[in-house]
Order: sequence, then structure tokens, then C-alpha cells
Amino acid sequence: MKREMAVAALLVLSGCGSVRGVGDMGVVIERATGSVEVVESTGGTVLARVEGLGDMSHASLVYSRDARYAFVFGRDGGLTKVDLLSGQIVNRIIQAGNSIGGSISQDGRLVAVANYEPGGVKIFDAQTLELVADIPALSASGKPSKVVGLADVPGQKFVFSLFDADEIWLADVQDPAKPVIRKFTDVGSKPYDALVSQNGRYYIAGLFGEDGFALVDLWKPDAGVKRILPDYGRGEKRQSVFKMPHLRGWALTDEYAFLPAMGRHEVLVVNRSDWKEVKRIPVHSQPVFAMAQPDGRQVWVNFAHPESGKVQVIDTMTMKVVKTLSPGPGVMHMEFTPRGEQAWLSVRDLDRVEVYSTRSLERVGSLSARKPSGIFFTSRAHRIGL
Amino acid sequence: MKREMAVAALLVLSGCGSVRGVGDMGVVIERATGSVEVVESTGGTVLARVEGLGDMSHASLVYSRDARYAFVFGRDGGLTKVDLLSGQIVNRIIQAGNSIGGSISQDGRLVAVANYEPGGVKIFDAQTLELVADIPALSASGKPSKVVGLADVPGQKFVFSLFDADEIWLADVQDPAKPVIRKFTDVGSKPYDALVSQNGRYYIAGLFGEDGFALVDLWKPDAGVKRILPDYGRGEKRQSVFKMPHLRGWALTDEYAFLPAMGRHEVLVVNRSDWKEVKRIPVHSQPVFAMAQPDGRQVWVNFAHPESGKVQVIDTMTMKVVKTLSPGPGVMHMEFTPRGEQAWLSVRDLDRVEVYSTRSLERVGSLSARKPSGIFFTSRAHRIGL
Repeated sequence: MKREMAVAALLVLSGCGSVRGVGDMGVVIERATGSVEVVESTGGTVLARVEGLGDMSHASLVYSRDARYAFVFGRDGGLTKVDLLSGQIVNRIIQAGNSIGGSISQDGRLVAVANYEPGGVKIFDAQTLELVADIPALSASGKPSKVVGLADVPGQKFVFSLFDADEIWLADVQDPAKPVIRKFTDVGSKPYDALVSQNGRYYIAGLFGEDGFALVDLWKPDAGVKRILPDYGRGEKRQSVFKMPHLRGWALTDEYAFLPAMGRHEVLVVNRSDWKEVKRIPVHSQPVFAMAQPDGRQVWVNFAHPESGKVQVIDTMTMKVVKTLSPGPGVMHMEFTPRGEQAWLSVRDLDRVEVYSTRSLERVGSLSARKPSGIFFTSRAHRIGL
Repeated sequence: MKREMAVAALLVLSGCGSVRGVGDMGVVIERATGSVEVVESTGGTVLARVEGLGDMSHASLVYSRDARYAFVFGRDGGLTKVDLLSGQIVNRIIQAGNSIGGSISQDGRLVAVANYEPGGVKIFDAQTLELVADIPALSASGKPSKVVGLADVPGQKFVFSLFDADEIWLADVQDPAKPVIRKFTDVGSKPYDALVSQNGRYYIAGLFGEDGFALVDLWKPDAGVKRILPDYGRGEKRQSVFKMPHLRGWALTDEYAFLPAMGRHEVLVVNRSDWKEVKRIPVHSQPVFAMAQPDGRQVWVNFAHPESGKVQVIDTMTMKVVKTLSPGPGVMHMEFTPRGEQAWLSVRDLDRVEVYSTRSLERVGSLSARKPSGIFFTSRAHRIGL
């Protein structure tokens, strides 16, 4: 009987998952092998590996509102629902030819995916992954567009940018069968990525076709799009862009936004009260991510190839680089523990995730991972604007 | 064998808890019966009741970093660790004669409790509830003080106020055996409660012995304490205070703080750039909590007895009351779902928790609870300043 019970218990555990708080868990993308690692940040350990997720280059994910399931967006159009507690795939669909990230609605019922090919946004039931809405992203002239910078905002809405149509759309999906779309046109040339402020109020899209950023105050949509930092590269020869900077760093402190400049060795600092440039902070190379710690006290910056072995930490009060770290070749992504005591860095070419203390800026831990890229903790389940 | 397996599975489930994501769970304090309810906000249901927690008047709680365990602070000095997944008490100690809330350190290893009797702060190991530090709160003259407004702030620190000594202390507990304490003296008369801004930078204590609030910028501790709103009641006869307002509403938007006035039918609006008064919003009665939605778009206000049957919703852009709700007699507390689509209100005298949509301001759900007071969702595990 004892042995049977142990077997049964094991079955329960392996079949249904383990009994565990998901609050300190996370997922690391292993881009080369189509797999993810399930990790936890209390002890800093790997709990499971999940395979079979397809092309995971540039993969990202969002979490269900109970933080148990990750919805992983692959480059191949795959949408995979992973159960962190069982370490298994519970559902997987190929929803497009090429996709670039997604989002989950405020109420957790809808998962939206931004597509390159065929463009547009598809919306799925988070429970079943059944398609509930399909929003083709057509410009005024009827041309389909790649969609980028998709994020959820309060009031059961999604916001996203049309790279090929120079538009930003705000979709109210309260009734997912009939999305109500508000379009902002002529926002600037080729919006390539975007970020949303922590409270969901401001949407800032980076422009690839010109200098500057497009800003929408979603509390005042009638005011339209405001162009910010239009002059930051004016009259200066643009360098080759080795890698498009990512804006999803939410490097917004109370007073300032810290934005990675495109093709320049600078982080741009913008005053949030008037959205004017305050300063350009010289950094090691072309920044990819500029990410503020949860307390906003420091901003961490990683860099494009071939300088991707360095990370710089900026003090947001003095606006100076306070330390240059050398975690190892190929630092792809950074993620802070929810309350900010640690920064986790994926160091692709070391096959490791390196853990740093944000207080001492020393390495305090290390995990094994195969060619890690994105790192995503479950506290994202509770955040606006992802 | 099948039956044995079912029994074994049941044992596993009941002994170790259920396999479930804790991200959408929460706890409701049932103050009259020394019990708590474990709830979930996806379906809006009660999952379990846990009894035997002692005197739960004014009880509050914080969560472990995996969000599985609640540390419940009772008025009788009880500190109870509740497992949300098993619905059981896993540990309980009586750590003082009378306590008033607590906090958990940035790294999740330490639980601190603020005590009235005998005063001071005690710090416990979050795993075992063993005492690891005892900080008596003695004024310069050696007089013990009640401690209020205890919160965690970044860098493994706790901040709290000494009601009887007019001081604010910042304790660095990196080495819990040797807390390093920085004292701010003469902060104003009788600090009675406090809030911390979302990023952990600003600590604002309300003053009971005089008008105004004491503010510490924790990024610039050398600048000392700044007194704000010193004139808000000057020259006006103070009304009887039916209930001390609570400041733990974090009604901080990007630009403004919304603070419940003491003994007045007003919510005070302060500009966060210079901490000067912008406006006083007239409200129904004496406010108790003024709480901002996660998106900062609306602030919800409840009131002291005998007007505790009403809740008012303030639009933070127009700074006007947009709706007065009548959820029922004895609205004790309000809590927003993590991304803000719902507000949960505990309506003590109805024995119910009423759920409202923040979009429609209509009631969308209702749960049974015995004389509910505080409501706490697990997303608090990831917040700074609790």
C-alpha cells in the first residue's frame, strides 16, 4: 500500500504538476533548441526544461492571470501554452507565418499576437487558444502591414503599431467579436517597437524611418500623437544599426524616460513632464535594452554585437555610468526579480544565466541554460502594458 | 487499486495542497471570527476558510516571495503563516502584546512586525518564524514608542515611524543580526501611519498631533525630513476624528498624491514635483482610504462610521467625484485586481465582498464572507513598500 501510494502521489505530481507557489518562478527562452527552462528565483535553480516550441529566435511570452501558464510567441507564428507547474506544453498552435510577440488582455481572457506575415493581430481565447478575433492591419490604401509594439492597456484594450503604414491603433476588445478600433495616422516613419508606461497611460513608439519617437497619451486620445526627440540625430551621420534597439525596457522613473538611441552610443534621457531631451548619456556601444530596476534607482544597458559582452549600469540620479560589467559574451536580455534585489542576465555564448545583486553589482548566482535569450518572471502576470 | 490511488491522490492534495497557480489568489480577513478566507479573482470564488488566527481586528498581511504563504499580523501580537494552497496554518507565534502590521524584506527572507506593546520592531525568519532581530524603539530620552507605518524599501531595508517619539527610522537589515539604523528626528507630532511610493523612493507619514505630513526622500536621506501640507487645517476648527485615516492606499499617480484628510470631508491633492497642495476635493464624509487603481485613472474613497456605506470614485484627471456607490453598510477595505479591471470591496455588515468593474462602475460579482475587513491579493508579493 505504501508503495502504491508513493506511485499514485508521483502520478499526481507528474500528471497535474507540483504543489508550489508560482510567484517566484520564471521562464528562460533557449533560442537555439526550441525549448524553455522553468526556473525559480528564491534558490536560483532550474526546475524543468520544456521542449518542442519551434523557432524561438526573438521569442517572448506573457503569463495567465494565475501566473501558472506562459503563452510563448515564437518567430515561426507558433503560440504555445506552457504549464509551469507540470513543466509541460498544454496546447500549441501555428497561428501565422511569422510573428513578433504578443500580449494578454487586462482580464486575462484574451491573448493577442502581432504578426509580420501576413501582418495584423490575431486574438485567441486564453483557455482554449481558439481564434476569437482577427484584425487585419491595412493602411488607408489597403496595404497590409507588419504589426509591432503590441501591448495591453487598461480598459480591456490593446495598442499596437503598423510598421508599414505609419499608424498606431488602439483596439477596444470588450466585445472580442467586435473590436472597436481607433486609428492614429501619420505617426512618423516606420514605428519599429514601443513601450507603455507602468500605469498604461503613455505609449511610446520608436521610429526607424526618421529620428525621434511617437507618443500617445491614452488618457487624452483626442490630442493625437505627439512627436518627441525629433532632433536627436539631426545633422549627424547615422551609424549602421547592428541590432534594432528594444523599447520594452520600461526605463521610466518618476521623472525621466531612459531610451536606447538607434545606431548611437547613447542612452537618451527625456523629462516626463514635457517629454523634452534632458541629456544624452554616453555608453559603451549601441544599446539594445535600457531597463530600469523596479525601484527606478539604476538603469541597466546591454549592447549590440560585437560589444554584447558588456553591461553598463547607470545611476538615474546622477545620470552617469557607475559600473561596467563583463558577464560574458552575448548578453541577450536582462530581467529583475519582482522587487528588484537581483538582475538576471542571459549570457548566450556561455550557456548560462548570471545573477547579479543590484545592491553590490556583484555576481551572486549562476544557472545553466542552452543559448539563453529572453528571461521572464511570473510577476509580469500582474503588470500593465506588456 | 484505482480506489487506493484516488485516496492517495486525495491525501496528496489535502496534505500538500492543491496544484494551482497562486497568481490570482487572495485572502480576506474575517475580523470577528479570527479566520480568513482564501479567494480567487478569475472566477470570483471562495476556495477555503482558515480558522484559529486570534484577534483579527485591524489585521493585515504580506506574502512570501513565491506568493504561496500569507504572513498575517493580528492585533493580539499573533503572527500566523497561512499556506494558501493547502488552506492551513503552517506556523503561528505570539510575538508581542499588541501589534499593528508588518512587512517582508526585499529578498523575502525576513518578516518584520511593528508593535504597540511593548513597542519596537521584531524581525523573524520567513521560513521558520524564529526571531532574528529585536529593535526596541526608544526615543532619545529612552522612552519606548509604539511603532507605526512599517514598510520595506529597496536595498533590504525597513522604514517605520515612532508614534510617541516623533521619529522615522530607516533600518538596513542586510545583516539581520546587526541592523544599521538611521534616525530622522523631530519629524512632526505623532506620526500615525505612512505610505511608500510605488518605487520605494518616498516615505510619507501622516501626523496626528499637528496638521500636515512628513516626507522623506530615501534617495536623498541627507536632505532629512520635509514637512508637506503644513497649513491644510490651519485656523479651522478640527472635527472629531471618527476613525484614523489609512495612508496605505498608495494613491499616487504620475503627477499627484491623493491623501485622505484627517477629520475633514476632503481628499487632499498634492503635486508630486514640489509636494505642494493643488486642490482639496470635497467628498461625502471623513475619508478612511483613498486608493488609486493600478492605472492611476481613478481613486476610490471609503468613509468612517456612520457614513461607511458609501464609496466615492474620483477621476484623477478632472479631480472630481464621478460616482457615488452604495455597496452596503460597513465598507471596510478596497483592493484592486492586479491589473485593475475590478475593485473588491469588503462590506462588513452584509457579510459580503462585492466586486465592481472599474470600467462600468457596476457590480459584477459577490462573495460570501463573515464580517470581512482587509482584502489582499497575492500580487502584493511583488510590490515594493508594503
